[in-house]
Amino acid sequence: MPLKYSWVESANTANHPFPLNNLPYCSFKTPGGKMSCGIGIGDFVLNATALEESALLKISDELLLNEGDWTKVIQRDMHCWTDVRDQVTELLKIDATQKEHVKPLLKPVSEVELHIPFSINEYSDFYSGRNHAENVGRIFRGEGKALPPNWLYMPIGYCGRRSSIVHSTTPIVRPWGQIKHSSSESPVYEPSSRFDFELEMGTIVGRGTPSRVSVKEADELIFGYTLLNDWSARDIQAWEYQPLGPFLSKAVATSLSPWIITKEALEPFRVDAPPREVELFPHLKDNGPMFYDVNLSVDLAADDAPATTITQTNFKEMYFSSAQQIAHLTSSGCSAVAGDLLGSGTISGPNKNERGCLLELTWGGEEPLMLPSGIKRTFLEDGDTVTIRGHAQGDGYRIGFGECTGTIQPAEPAWL
Amino acid sequence: MPLKYSWVESANTANHPFPLNNLPYCSFKTPGGKMSCGIGIGDFVLNATALEESALLKISDELLLNEGDWTKVIQRDMHCWTDVRDQVTELLKIDATQKEHVKPLLKPVSEVELHIPFSINEYSDFYSGRNHAENVGRIFRGEGKALPPNWLYMPIGYCGRRSSIVHSTTPIVRPWGQIKHSSSESPVYEPSSRFDFELEMGTIVGRGTPSRVSVKEADELIFGYTLLNDWSARDIQAWEYQPLGPFLSKAVATSLSPWIITKEALEPFRVDAPPREVELFPHLKDNGPMFYDVNLSVDLAADDAPATTITQTNFKEMYFSSAQQIAHLTSSGCSAVAGDLLGSGTISGPNKNERGCLLELTWGGEEPLMLPSGIKRTFLEDGDTVTIRGHAQGDGYRIGFGECTGTIQPAEPAWL
Repeated sequence: MPLKYSWVESANTANHPFPLNNLPYCSFKTPGGKMSCGIGIGDFVLNATALEESALLKISDELLLNEGDWTKVIQRDMHCWTDVRDQVTELLKIDATQKEHVKPLLKPVSEVELHIPFSINEYSDFYSGRNHAENVGRIFRGEGKALPPNWLYMPIGYCGRRSSIVHSTTPIVRPWGQIKHSSSESPVYEPSSRFDFELEMGTIVGRGTPSRVSVKEADELIFGYTLLNDWSARDIQAWEYQPLGPFLSKAVATSLSPWIITKEALEPFRVDAPPREVELFPHLKDNGPMFYDVNLSVDLAADDAPATTITQTNFKEMYFSSAQQIAHLTSSGCSAVAGDLLGSGTISGPNKNERGCLLELTWGGEEPLMLPSGIKRTFLEDGDTVTIRGHAQGDGYRIGFGECTGTIQPAEPAWL
Repeated sequence: MPLKYSWVESANTANHPFPLNNLPYCSFKTPGGKMSCGIGIGDFVLNATALEESALLKISDELLLNEGDWTKVIQRDMHCWTDVRDQVTELLKIDATQKEHVKPLLKPVSEVELHIPFSINEYSDFYSGRNHAENVGRIFRGEGKALPPNWLYMPIGYCGRRSSIVHSTTPIVRPWGQIKHSSSESPVYEPSSRFDFELEMGTIVGRGTPSRVSVKEADELIFGYTLLNDWSARDIQAWEYQPLGPFLSKAVATSLSPWIITKEALEPFRVDAPPREVELFPHLKDNGPMFYDVNLSVDLAADDAPATTITQTNFKEMYFSSAQQIAHLTSSGCSAVAGDLLGSGTISGPNKNERGCLLELTWGGEEPLMLPSGIKRTFLEDGDTVTIRGHAQGDGYRIGFGECTGTIQPAEPAWL
């Protein structure tokens, strides 16, 4: 599929992240204004709430965008989602007839404040990147026991804390926690010194279902994707995670990029599943291409040095797709709910410079990362800024994901 | 403290669960009516929503009970909570002056439908019963390794799925799941055959806090308590829980009793912390009596046989209090939010007939339970009904918790 031309000229720039092919959804505010739903097009945000209020966009008998987030649309089904996208495409295409009515509803992206564009029901974080799971297994358990025995059979996951989810640019305060150093018999309570990022894709579940779904049905429940950084305190995690899994080490903050890239925008970038080593159960079986070719990168700006790209990987490195994660979630009778957010698990490629977190990049801190500025890093230091970016590369155009960024703030002072 | 007398005569019956000393909160509906907030008194529910609408109860400038649940009160602070309780006590005491205005707002409990009385923000389930943790450790890891190394230092917990929380009496459908039998190399997908209950206390966090709190401050955030059954598929759990903890095995259903017993009603029943084997960190240190003497029991009705009490234990068997769990939750920068629900962890006494789940009562299924009817049980069978009850015993009166009950339904048919 080639670039679709829009009358919003910046959207036609080669490899602009937000061409007419993309149309990502956001929530935005202008200074002093109210929260509105937005749609990214070129260098602008189109006010979708105003579009609906002025009847240029008709979704339902009632207004769905009046609260300034996309939740009520997410609660509908894929026919509604396609309809919204088709109408907006019609309004923004190069030869649109209603251009003069739409133009006043555009705001430069640079002039608005972006927020998380939906109400999160629950957050489930998975562990479905094979290279990551193998690397972590080797770091903690040595060669030979890399993957847990259940790993190839199911997308391993755990429930995360939705209250800790923050929008991109929110400062991330280094956490305190119980940490057990190998030099001592008992733990200490101190600021984390092995604080890490995790490069993940967030999947937004739409519509929901109270019953078991196949992978094909699960795929139809997916509304869209967003960049996700699952900040992780490795030292707190190591001490707390047995036997019930990570808790506070992963509840410090999880950052989300402000743009939802719809599943429809990513249709041209579907790729097949990786080879399967064990046969999957029928409800988890691959059913067509449900993985995506999306380039992902992480930039680290340490101290005052310029940002450096420290990893480049791809969303297609997943072993289980988001659809398989949803099918698994419902397979024991648990409902999927509109607004559920799934974390993919850390996405690492097979090579060293393709690893999705510092734990892997520095092999547990044993092989420090040397940045071009001469700065050395094992884990994150105060003042470091981590920025995740992503895009799918089409034929002369891109589907850009925007960015998910956060800067590490020093830990709170000692207390009590 | 002796029994407080009410003009609602049934509330004065010796050991009635709902005397004037208790005043538990619920949400209720009459047939065809709307959801209202209720307060238990004797054999009746007092319509608190109507009470507020008619200005007999004045909490705030705006109506807080008009949506039929207690969330807006829970979001306030302990001064508000005390004020509500004091006003209602004044209206219901034996020599109340406004008795004739209040009387029409009473409905027999037997004629109303009860619902979960608050909006759950997040559900965190802990593992803070020492006898339970030791028993489970022995069953799975053998003598000598009973407690994980971190256990005495912190209330171990994990995030649960709030969407799976159901009110008492909701039928519980036996889940399907991936199960690995010891006789086979690979797992199967089949209905759970080791389906269990877990006797827990649920704690409702009020007000909330964005920052670290001490145990004393945490105690002031607690709004009340409710009975909780954390239904658990042991066979699904055993296969899925490494390395990220329980997921689907605990997301089938968690049942809540319909009554919130306020912290104030339980004040006379506070007891001291158990002896500490390791020194707790300052933010987790015991600060006065924050455990509660509440008798708890589980009845099992198997097949058509009458219900039998299969365990009797006490909430004071906890090793970490709810206040300590909240202090721990916030200790790494995670906020506590009004409406957070904490599960205590399974509450087992030191003796065999005081264990809070079948896993312990039947020692992993190896020592079946023989019921008086001649029926044998290792884990739950279809048609079994499990009922948790609780009460604190005062001097001639009780603070009753009501009951939390559920009946096991057969698994869904095979699919795909």
